[in-house]
Amino acid sequence: GVQMASVRIREAEEGDCGQILRLIRELAEYEKLSDQVQISEEALRADGFGENPLYRCLVADLPPAPGDTQGPRVVGYGLYYFIYSTWKGRTVYLEDIYVTPEYRGQGIGSKIIRRVAQVALDQGCSQFRLAVLDWNQRAMALYKALGAQDLTEAEGWHAFTFDGEAMRKLAG
Amino acid sequence: GVQMASVRIREAEEGDCGQILRLIRELAEYEKLSDQVQISEEALRADGFGENPLYRCLVADLPPAPGDTQGPRVVGYGLYYFIYSTWKGRTVYLEDIYVTPEYRGQGIGSKIIRRVAQVALDQGCSQFRLAVLDWNQRAMALYKALGAQDLTEAEGWHAFTFDGEAMRKLAG
Repeated sequence: GVQMASVRIREAEEGDCGQILRLIRELAEYEKLSDQVQISEEALRADGFGENPLYRCLVADLPPAPGDTQGPRVVGYGLYYFIYSTWKGRTVYLEDIYVTPEYRGQGIGSKIIRRVAQVALDQGCSQFRLAVLDWNQRAMALYKALGAQDLTEAEGWHAFTFDGEAMRKLAG
Repeated sequence: GVQMASVRIREAEEGDCGQILRLIRELAEYEKLSDQVQISEEALRADGFGENPLYRCLVADLPPAPGDTQGPRVVGYGLYYFIYSTWKGRTVYLEDIYVTPEYRGQGIGSKIIRRVAQVALDQGCSQFRLAVLDWNQRAMALYKALGAQDLTEAEGWHAFTFDGEAMRKLAG
């Protein structure tokens, strides 16, 4: 891994959307589900940075090296929003968390998770949820080590989805 | 089951929160997880009917019988909100769907789901998600019959949660 003494976690700005999309695609590739990515940079900009943002995002970035003419490089992100539990009220949901491979193992992911937990507490949330693929043992072990509970294992929750075609049939 | 020719699906109003809470508790009891319900009627009112509602809710109700001095009786509900997929954008999430036992088997649940699908399409959502317990074969069979895919089965997604104690440790 590359040394990351100067990695910083900050709130994403609209100008980061191109780099966030690059990482969204990397994550989907890592999850072997990259054929499902249909989002565009324009949609990310409009959906996250308009009047009623649909999500919030943290990024981990590196300042440019001396002589580097590009801006800071984004090497990780955590994209989240607020959901509502009828048992526990306002809840944070971390939709994506990702650190690019050469910067793993240095605590960047944990830093993002800690920051999301701070936001959750600041916003009066009683819990903070996320989803992980069952073969991603590295991620599962990290979340458990940080204190998370696997609700699918403990209680048997399955995620279901109706796609566009199914929704149109349902709506009649 | 009781005949339900006159059951109507409509948007919930603030005054329904007491009856919705009764059904939230019935659902949690059915799911064998009723010790987890911490929400109050006051919280449901404030969270769903203030300036920035955290959720939306549909209810199935019965008009009062002739001579009945009470208002309409709520016999089912579907509580949902909007989430954000980094693959597919704006998405509807149906947090709870429930029909009280004596009114099951008459299509009320399907009507609520169809209405949520209409909302999702109206709001430009590309998918509509929910979660179900693995032993609730009746619900799983219904969702599959209506065209849903089980993402935990197909792709291996597990739901994780950090509770309040875990969040406070994370936040430091």
